[in-house]
Formats: sequence, structure tokens, C-alpha cells
Amino acid sequence: MRQVYMDYSATTPVKKEVLDEMVPFFTEHYGNPSSLYTIGQESKEAISKARQRVASLIGADEKEIFFTACGTESDNWALFGVTDVKKKKGNHIITTKIEHHAILHSCQFLEKHGFDVTYLDIDDQGFVDPEELKAAITDQTIMVSIMMVNNEIGTIEPIKELVKVTKEKNKDIIFHTDAVQGLGNVPIDVKDLGVDLMSMSAHKIYGPKGTGALYVRRGVRLSNYIHGGAQENKHRAGTENLAGIVGFGKAAEIAEQTLDEHIKHSSSLRDYFVQQVLEKIPDTYVNGTMEKRHPGNANITFKYIEGESILLLLDSKGIYVSTGSACSSASLTPSHVLTALGVPVEMIHGTVRFSIGDFTTKEDLDYVIGELTEIVKKLREISSVSEKKGW
Amino acid sequence: MRQVYMDYSATTPVKKEVLDEMVPFFTEHYGNPSSLYTIGQESKEAISKARQRVASLIGADEKEIFFTACGTESDNWALFGVTDVKKKKGNHIITTKIEHHAILHSCQFLEKHGFDVTYLDIDDQGFVDPEELKAAITDQTIMVSIMMVNNEIGTIEPIKELVKVTKEKNKDIIFHTDAVQGLGNVPIDVKDLGVDLMSMSAHKIYGPKGTGALYVRRGVRLSNYIHGGAQENKHRAGTENLAGIVGFGKAAEIAEQTLDEHIKHSSSLRDYFVQQVLEKIPDTYVNGTMEKRHPGNANITFKYIEGESILLLLDSKGIYVSTGSACSSASLTPSHVLTALGVPVEMIHGTVRFSIGDFTTKEDLDYVIGELTEIVKKLREISSVSEKKGW
Repeated sequence: MRQVYMDYSATTPVKKEVLDEMVPFFTEHYGNPSSLYTIGQESKEAISKARQRVASLIGADEKEIFFTACGTESDNWALFGVTDVKKKKGNHIITTKIEHHAILHSCQFLEKHGFDVTYLDIDDQGFVDPEELKAAITDQTIMVSIMMVNNEIGTIEPIKELVKVTKEKNKDIIFHTDAVQGLGNVPIDVKDLGVDLMSMSAHKIYGPKGTGALYVRRGVRLSNYIHGGAQENKHRAGTENLAGIVGFGKAAEIAEQTLDEHIKHSSSLRDYFVQQVLEKIPDTYVNGTMEKRHPGNANITFKYIEGESILLLLDSKGIYVSTGSACSSASLTPSHVLTALGVPVEMIHGTVRFSIGDFTTKEDLDYVIGELTEIVKKLREISSVSEKKGW
Repeated sequence: MRQVYMDYSATTPVKKEVLDEMVPFFTEHYGNPSSLYTIGQESKEAISKARQRVASLIGADEKEIFFTACGTESDNWALFGVTDVKKKKGNHIITTKIEHHAILHSCQFLEKHGFDVTYLDIDDQGFVDPEELKAAITDQTIMVSIMMVNNEIGTIEPIKELVKVTKEKNKDIIFHTDAVQGLGNVPIDVKDLGVDLMSMSAHKIYGPKGTGALYVRRGVRLSNYIHGGAQENKHRAGTENLAGIVGFGKAAEIAEQTLDEHIKHSSSLRDYFVQQVLEKIPDTYVNGTMEKRHPGNANITFKYIEGESILLLLDSKGIYVSTGSACSSASLTPSHVLTALGVPVEMIHGTVRFSIGDFTTKEDLDYVIGELTEIVKKLREISSVSEKKGW
């Protein structure tokens, strides 16, 4: 059976060139990077090379890149590290209602420990309004954390403007962005954006799972979060995930070299897919805006039926898609992102996220469109949801 | 040139059988374990299998194993997670002077946040005295953290007795052990030991760097440390290091199957090495006890010369050894472990850790002994340390 992976926003396969660079670091070049002898120093150099590659992808200096275990750890470090050093200056944090749970659950933990958190709304296209952010800043505000690209509806937030209004109000407020979905999918120049901290993950850009990074602008202070040995210039302890970091570096290099091509490939296929689905399947619509959107993201609501049923029937045809994000896919709670977007709860349950990446082809999409059309038709025939709910 | 790796306590090469199981999870079976479709569920099952294998190695139930990014993260989680939920019951923690920096630096951080920490001494063989632990417990004590096997001198601490005296005094005190050096090197049965929490790492047992685990005895409560998605039964967020976890599982399976053989192989070679070095090189001695010691550990002081010079000259002969532990090898501070053992500072500087593992052969050791004898002789000839210090 044909297999079509359409969940690149959940995770990506590791590219062959990436794996090829990683493998020797498991069995041959296995020295501990903290060790002083030759094979230890060679490992240290491999990490340094990876750091340069990740830095280059985002326009940073290599000394501003700190490797972590995942985007989630980077998010946690940013929030807990900044609030720990700034708690005497204030106890107010601003974020949004559409962040990843790595931010939202960390904020909830901080709320239990004396911090106040403002969760900004989004408009009906998924955008955070810089004016609303400005209005939310108080003299207690120490930190703002707003994601670069939403993981469900793909909205690209106006980070540069959001940083600008924040710093105009108080330049000491630390601005963090979770760029896990943005990295490798939109051009990023941290100096131009003006962010202080930025979270990244390897496994969304064809690198391995288990490696992330935090960009820390030179001069920004935050407490360490994982305490122990002197790794990562004494800022993140724990023996480095050597092969994983090497893989992240290679994936970042490829992402930088192929960014334009990747965006063009993904967005043209995505636009074709959306156009075909809307044309062939009645009573469907796209959530969010088609402007300023992740190039591979299509978030589509199919009225009168359940997204999970679509997911399971597509799965039986070798097609892999998602309802909501992967990290909350087993949850029965309606998507907090679609809720914030104002989508009614019964529509949220009929929503599927299709995400397109470097290995997707037009033939894949034609296969998916064919199967999807049949599946939606069948589900609507057996469904009585529309009658029950009075649609 | 012959290469002899004698730093297995710093890290180990990944065994071929381990890598072979890992590789497909990068490029073929890359589904996000949180995804509901087939390739996601297959990843979830692979993690479950790894969890069973790690649990089996230590006599735990699979539900008591939580994967982390490294032993250091496990140590941090244990300390910060327990102190967060128990802070209203008391603010006193007991540990020892010879713990890994993952424990010591976390404790220092806790001291800055309102906790009191007692650092127990060790005797001249490296053992913690259960009576001293008992005497240190107060009505404020909420947690004890004592390592299973020391990473520098290899002492196997009497964990079962230490747990016993702790629980006799107050059964609510949480007992954590850092077993990073113990796992795969000593038989471990968590139920017999009676510990509540135990830290582990894959890369010390021929698995990959970047994967660790925390054993949490059923019923023990601690706050999460990495907040976000619902991974690890909602206790440790972040997309799982899928291939790394699979590798940890395979390494644990091999470690369980070969434990007796591994201990016999390592300890017989280690004993041969120590006997030969002491016989052939005058003015040398072993730190710690030869009883109840990590089977592959030889920590040897060479009087009148610098360990770092020995390390560098051995490196030029393709022989890789360590001064102190890898995690602090770049530090100029004398080893805190040898200091606690009562070794004079000038002797500490003349100390080298040799660690033996599964790929070490007698021929390797004969080569090392030959080169080492020459190197020590040469260094002592050019050294004037003995005269300057009045030896």
C-alpha cells in the first residue's frame, strides 16, 4: 500500500545525509566532549561545528547557541531561567492563548509559584495584536513569550513588531519566542527580529528527535535549568547528545541551503492541496489565514463529521495526518488554538491538520485527495451529527 | 598506532547490536510516539519495549521508569521535583561530599532558594557511614540523595543500609540514589534496596548519549520538571528521543544478560592492571578500597608528578584516561572526591582514573602498562616537584 506522510509538523524523518554524519559518533568517535584527550577533543570540535551551523541558520553568533534535549526543554529553560533572575523586579509574564503546551503548562506552574500570567487573544486569522500586547504590559512585566509560527494553524506571528512595542515600553523586558515550527520554514534573523531568547528543535527540520537549542542573545541573563557539569559553557549540564547535536548541525546546514526551495516546494503543494480539497469536498473550510502562514500547513474543518474518524480511516489507507498537534493528539479536550480562533466546538472536532514537507509529491497529494473525498463522503452518509445538532 | 580506551566511566562506545536497533528509528520508523496513526503507535510500542527492558535490569515495573535526556536531568528532576512537593513539610536535604556535580550544583541552587543541605563525609575507603546519616536526620529532613557507585574512586555505597536507617527514622523521607555509575556494573534490585528514586544513563552502559531515566517507585510524588505535552505518562514533556530510548532499551537488555560476565571480565582485568602498575612503578597507590568497588575502576596516584601530564603523554600513545571525572576534567579545582577521601592536594594532582570495560583486552593493558611505566619514569626525571615540595 502507498504510504503518504502528511504530518511534518509533528515530526520529520531524518534525512539520509544527516544520519550519515551522525552514525560515526555512536561507535567510532564516541569520546566524551568533556574529556581532554584526542577523541574527546574531536567530539568537542564536532559540537562546535554543529553550533556554528545552527547559529548560521538564524543569524546568531555560535556563542549564543546552547544545546538542549528538545524544544520543550528550551521553552522551560527560557521561562524558569528568566523568571528566577528577574523575580525581584516583577512577577508578571505575558504570553498568548495559542502557545504550545511547553509554554502554557510552564506558565501554569509559575502561576502556582507566585507569578501572574496574561494570556493574549488572537484575531480571527490567528494573529496577536501588537497594540494588545502593549496595553497588557505593566510595571511588573518581566517577560513576554510569543510563538513564531503556530503549530496547528500555521500563523506566522509579527514577532518583530511585537518585540518593538515591548522594548519601547521597557527595554528590560525579556522577549522569548518559541520558533520550533518556524525554524527551517520561515527565514529567521534573530538580530533583525530583536528577540532575546528563541527555542528550536532538530526533529522538525529533518534532524533527530532528542536535540533542541536555545538562542540566548549576548548579554541576556537567565539561571541555568539543568545543573551539574560544565557543559555548554557552564550553562546546560549533562553529557551532550553528541550524535544528536551533530545531526542537528547537519540538518540546520541543509535547511539554510535549501530554505527558498523548501518554502516554494511546500507552499505550492499545500496551495494545490487546499484548492483541490475545497473544490472537491463540499462544506469544508480552512482555519487561519492563507497569508503569512507556515508553507506546509493546511488546517481544514470538515463539517458534520469527526476529525478523528477521518484520521483513522486515512490511516487505514497509509495516510498519516493529525487532529490538533501531536503533543496533545491523545487528549479529548478541544484544541485550545482553534478555540482561541473562535471555531465552534463541533467544528473543532471536525478538523484535521495536514502538513507537507520535503518528501511530499503531487502524486502523494492526488492519492490523498482521492481517498479523503471518499472517506468524507462515507462518514457523512453514516453520520447523524448534522441532524442531532440541528445543522 | 594502537588505540586503547580506558575511560569507560566517562562514556562508552555504542555497541553494534544497540546501533543496529536504533538506526531504523531515524529514517523509517520516525513517527511521533504521540501520534494516533500506525507509524506513531509503532514508535510508542518501541518505547514501551525499551521501558520494559530498562525496568527489567533493575527489578522495577515498567510504569516506574520515566525517560529523560541524561543522568543529570534525572538527578535535577529528583531533587527539584521532591523539594517542590515537600517544601511545606521541611527544608532539609542530606547528601554527601562525593556526589556528582549534577547533585552538588543542584543542592547549591536549592540552598539559594531556602533549603538547608547537609553534606556527609566519607571514611578513608570512600564509604558513607549509616550512623552518620542517621545522626544528620532532623524533623526538617525531607530527602536524602546518596550515589550508588562513586564515579572517581568506584566505591559502592551501602545503599540498602542507608535506606534502612533513613526510613526507620522517618518513612516519609524520600531516598534518591544516583546510579549512573552503578547501572550495568553492579547488580541492582530497586525493591531490595528500597530506594524511592534512582537516576540512570544510557551512555555508561554502551547505549547512546542523550538518554537517561528516572526510576520513581510507585506512590512516590514529585513535581514534573520539564512541563509541556503529555509524554511519559504526563510526567516528562518533550518529544521523546525515540532512537535514543530504543538504544537504551537494547543496551539494558544486553547489560542484564551479560552482567556476571561483564563484572568478571572487568574486575579480573582491573585487578591485573592494578597489580602490574603497583609492582612495576614505585611510589604509586590506589585510592579507595579494593572491596565493594566498581569492577572496572582503578584510581591511582603517582607521587611527584602531575596526572594531567600523564594523561597528555598517554594520549600521544593512543591511550585515553582521565584525571577526575569527565564532567569536571577541564577544571583546575582539585577533585572534591579525593579531597573528601583525605588525599593531600599534591597527591590529588598526581592521580589518574583508568576505567576498564567490555572491549578492553589483556593485550591492551600490557601495552598501557609498558607505556605508562616509561612515561612516569620520564616525568619523574624531569620533575622537580618532589624537591620543591620537600618530599
